Amino acid sequence: MKKLSRRSFLGNSTFLSVAGLLGFAPLAGSGKRAQKGDFVHHVYFWLKNPGSKEDKAKLIEGLNTLKAIKQIQLARIGEPAPTNRDVIEKGYDVSWLLFFDNLEDEEIYQKHPVHLKFVENYSHLWDKVIVYDSVDV
Amino acid sequence: MKKLSRRSFLGNSTFLSVAGLLGFAPLAGSGKRAQKGDFVHHVYFWLKNPGSKEDKAKLIEGLNTLKAIKQIQLARIGEPAPTNRDVIEKGYDVSWLLFFDNLEDEEIYQKHPVHLKFVENYSHLWDKVIVYDSVDV
Repeated sequence: MKKLSRRSFLGNSTFLSVAGLLGFAPLAGSGKRAQKGDFVHHVYFWLKNPGSKEDKAKLIEGLNTLKAIKQIQLARIGEPAPTNRDVIEKGYDVSWLLFFDNLEDEEIYQKHPVHLKFVENYSHLWDKVIVYDSVDV
Repeated sequence: MKKLSRRSFLGNSTFLSVAGLLGFAPLAGSGKRAQKGDFVHHVYFWLKNPGSKEDKAKLIEGLNTLKAIKQIQLARIGEPAPTNRDVIEKGYDVSWLLFFDNLEDEEIYQKHPVHLKFVENYSHLWDKVIVYDSVDV
């Protein structure tokens, strides 16, 4: 059985124990697969006050409200890692990564009242966003 | 049980059937959680010949070889989605998204012989890469 961390996807140790007892390996390698058309929405935020921990925390608070939108299959909030190479963009303050099943679900997310409320309440915090929308090949 | 698509993470219908029979819901909501320090490595490639389907297929072939590196917890290969808003960057040709458990695993990946071989064999295909490394907050 290939060793893969499952906590990102499952986070349920009871299940893992049971799966282990049953002797099958449902996740071996499968975390690396996705289906054609699966949608990845990645947003990078540059704050108006880049040094402000308070504004960053506020934005993260806002992003957390978005997780209520049920079309979201996975959501991750990040900040620049301490890696250093010429090709690495480190100027942003917050990374917001979402998985959707398809383009249609992402469109529902964009127009969702919770999302509109988020923009209304938190967009004063950022100066710039760059969005990368991609679909799995 | 919250309805969540599991195919992105599991892709194993046998497992799902068994889990269903056992009556527990290991994935309910958990796809949205990640742990502090989890590492997201997102690379966007601009091809030297942006219109070349052949070069794009070649690059994708190369990226697929990287999946052999066991530190990778999730890998997704994408292309720009047909979404259109001012903030969306659509100029790149291929998106390469990886999850690692931590920074150390990403460093192993960077120096891994399979990765070095990939750079050696495929870097002539791209003109530019932008990398966003982020750690979950």
